[in-house]
Amino acid sequence: MTTLTETLLCPERADDVASVADLPAVLPVVGRDTLVPLVDGREVRYANLDVAASAPALQAVADRVNQVLPLYASVHRGAGYLSQVSTALYEAARRAIGAFVGAREDDVTIVTRNTTDSLNLLAGCVPADPVTGEPGRVLVLDVEHHANFLPWQRDAAATVLTGRGTVAETLAEIRAELRSAAVEGRPYALLALTGASNVTGEALPVAEVVAAAHDAGARVLLDGAQLVPHRRLSLAETGVDYVAFSGHKTYAPFGAGALVGRRDWLDVGTPYLAGGGAVRRVRVGGTEWHDGPARHEAGSPNVVGAVALAAACEALAALDPAEVREHEDALRRRLVAGLEALDRVEVVRVWSDAADPVGVVTFTVAGYDPGLVAAYLSAEHGIGVRDGRFCAHPLLGRLGFDAGAVRASVGVGTTGEEVERLVAAVAALVAEGPQARYDVVDGLWVVVDDPRPVPEGSGLEGLLATAALGADEAFGCLPD
Amino acid sequence: MTTLTETLLCPERADDVASVADLPAVLPVVGRDTLVPLVDGREVRYANLDVAASAPALQAVADRVNQVLPLYASVHRGAGYLSQVSTALYEAARRAIGAFVGAREDDVTIVTRNTTDSLNLLAGCVPADPVTGEPGRVLVLDVEHHANFLPWQRDAAATVLTGRGTVAETLAEIRAELRSAAVEGRPYALLALTGASNVTGEALPVAEVVAAAHDAGARVLLDGAQLVPHRRLSLAETGVDYVAFSGHKTYAPFGAGALVGRRDWLDVGTPYLAGGGAVRRVRVGGTEWHDGPARHEAGSPNVVGAVALAAACEALAALDPAEVREHEDALRRRLVAGLEALDRVEVVRVWSDAADPVGVVTFTVAGYDPGLVAAYLSAEHGIGVRDGRFCAHPLLGRLGFDAGAVRASVGVGTTGEEVERLVAAVAALVAEGPQARYDVVDGLWVVVDDPRPVPEGSGLEGLLATAALGADEAFGCLPD
Repeated sequence: MTTLTETLLCPERADDVASVADLPAVLPVVGRDTLVPLVDGREVRYANLDVAASAPALQAVADRVNQVLPLYASVHRGAGYLSQVSTALYEAARRAIGAFVGAREDDVTIVTRNTTDSLNLLAGCVPADPVTGEPGRVLVLDVEHHANFLPWQRDAAATVLTGRGTVAETLAEIRAELRSAAVEGRPYALLALTGASNVTGEALPVAEVVAAAHDAGARVLLDGAQLVPHRRLSLAETGVDYVAFSGHKTYAPFGAGALVGRRDWLDVGTPYLAGGGAVRRVRVGGTEWHDGPARHEAGSPNVVGAVALAAACEALAALDPAEVREHEDALRRRLVAGLEALDRVEVVRVWSDAADPVGVVTFTVAGYDPGLVAAYLSAEHGIGVRDGRFCAHPLLGRLGFDAGAVRASVGVGTTGEEVERLVAAVAALVAEGPQARYDVVDGLWVVVDDPRPVPEGSGLEGLLATAALGADEAFGCLPD
Repeated sequence: MTTLTETLLCPERADDVASVADLPAVLPVVGRDTLVPLVDGREVRYANLDVAASAPALQAVADRVNQVLPLYASVHRGAGYLSQVSTALYEAARRAIGAFVGAREDDVTIVTRNTTDSLNLLAGCVPADPVTGEPGRVLVLDVEHHANFLPWQRDAAATVLTGRGTVAETLAEIRAELRSAAVEGRPYALLALTGASNVTGEALPVAEVVAAAHDAGARVLLDGAQLVPHRRLSLAETGVDYVAFSGHKTYAPFGAGALVGRRDWLDVGTPYLAGGGAVRRVRVGGTEWHDGPARHEAGSPNVVGAVALAAACEALAALDPAEVREHEDALRRRLVAGLEALDRVEVVRVWSDAADPVGVVTFTVAGYDPGLVAAYLSAEHGIGVRDGRFCAHPLLGRLGFDAGAVRASVGVGTTGEEVERLVAAVAALVAEGPQARYDVVDGLWVVVDDPRPVPEGSGLEGLLATAALGADEAFGCLPD
């Protein structure tokens, strides 16, 4: 018997990790029985191993949405019975979302669009340096997702620290930077850090990060996008000041995310959205802004999205955390061990000593472009993964994966069969190569003469390939 | 036989307008059969006459959401089959939304959160004056909703023009201001105008506004929040440069709205949200932004919301415009005539000569606070309306309704029975006063010892009264 960390650090023990083929999902998700076509004409159940990008809705979330939709009416300013019901539903959802991340009594829970939106909002609220009046300083590590770089670079004074090869060294770097900045009289206002890397699932230990930041007078924002769908987080218990997360990664893909945290900055920061609801009083000459969540939720809120996110929070909170962790650890262990046992496969790590990573595993197969691997897994095995640089270009560059990699991610809706299918599919690729023919079109790997039809009743005329190079628009964070 | 305009201008002909009790809805909406409790213990079908704030989902929209949810997966950067299906669904939704407002071939359709979000986005893209380098000038009328004031005041150089009593005089004012600004070498970049007032349903004639603006070198943004759920609009045919609208007012309350219009400003304007997806390339030292919609849609998009909005657009586009207009005109005519036939009731108008208003009717009942009227309509008749100043404080102030008013609004899901119920309820109020006891608590009118229960299975412990003064938070645009 080995511990998770031992397994991670000792890939030679891979054969210790038995098959998880019979491991069921923890919670049912919508689409768990969706069949997808393969290039050979067969149909298989879709294996969604891209939940770190967007997770399917929990069945409980979809049921809740259908339950409240007949009660839906205008909120916050309507006197009608259903308006008051909808307002109560919205505010109850806000409480549930805050409770899910252990909000302190005075914390504010703002319903946003997603993590990116939450971080942009907070970036506008970092207070200026009280002495110099210059924009507040924010410290970020180079391991971050773009959403946790760009807002601080634009709206505050961001410093990007290059991470080291171990957690211990990286923590020492952070401590030194925070301390010397404070000593030099240009202290950081905020340390913005991922709760779990979207590339490797790894993280720095929260308690030590919070202690280091608070010692130097800085607050801590945790990018919880990849953390809260996997682990319970409590702001009250950890002392983390702010957490941002997304509904679409938390099994509630209805357009709502959240920012939860300390009230003072949010009560005085510039409202991110200007409009009705955010203001107390408008005259032609000037405006008085609200405080509290209203300040940052101009326009009619996404009531259905908030109710959906709250339903997901409640469903996840009702689980036994040990059961969730055991399920995810079993899947991750098997994934890492199964992949590392294969020739030519390398698993990406940020730190050699990271403990307790969440269910995100990124790898490369030497000799195959990541885009080809992803196209092959979909076309020949019905598996959805992600390839590219995962909106984390600086990290991938530093680790030597400038050409990108393949990411598989698991969660409460993932079954062991899906993980086994991935390991077997990569093994088959290494052993025999792909069976179909693939080519690069417009920079993307596609099946030559792809015979796969679109889903019946979808109204679609065709699929849109990876990274959606539609017309003259280029989306995404491609390995450009 | 009188025309609509004659009826509106001649309330004394009110008795010409026969009952519409048998008029059915044009399209079925979710919640059309929802029963709500009254204070006397009865239950009645809810009459949602607050669709100008938030409209219920079309049944077709809810069906479409349930259809695509099992196909939902990550978009834009996923190689999996369902990722490509979801990407195709999202891009097809974008095309349908653009087509619904007659987008020109080169126009950009950006999926936003709502109208407020759309206007904030565009406000950040108004180009600076090419000569002075100062923020671009934006002309707005004082009739606007806050969402169409505040963004321009914050992000551009807004001038607020006071409207006049007639459309003709107001148009003349606009023309004069645009022209003199151009002559003085400080031309307006943009005229931002409502497509239909959220207070009265009235509007200035689009063709004349566009001609005036374009003559003076200014573009036109139409706040379509209250227009597009009621009337077909074509950017291509009218020459309007930008339109913004909301899903929650367009029978798709799933958190998505849109901004559609000319590409050049949007391709160079500062991205509103910084984050993954909006960038082509990120290095620690700098960033290259995308153009096209991707530039403004950082983070994972609200795929379900976009698909829902597209489904609503397609359902509305499939209707015979004449049938929609006839249905709405009949409801509005009866509402105005029925209310104006009552003593002590006054209907609000911005312009004495406005033609073709949409189904929004705002009124006061002398001797009764608007909040009491709204509470009475809900508690004793199961009718949902809105009271207050409708996030249009400057207009209400100028028209002498500083104490607010009551707004009833109708749409494709409204039945004649609902309108008749409102007219009869206001008549009963005028004749006999309210039957229950009401009091003001925390500034809001509520039923004393309200006996009405919350909906079964909602999980709620109580209703949240108008304007949701929860804890220390104050939402909305109250008559403060």
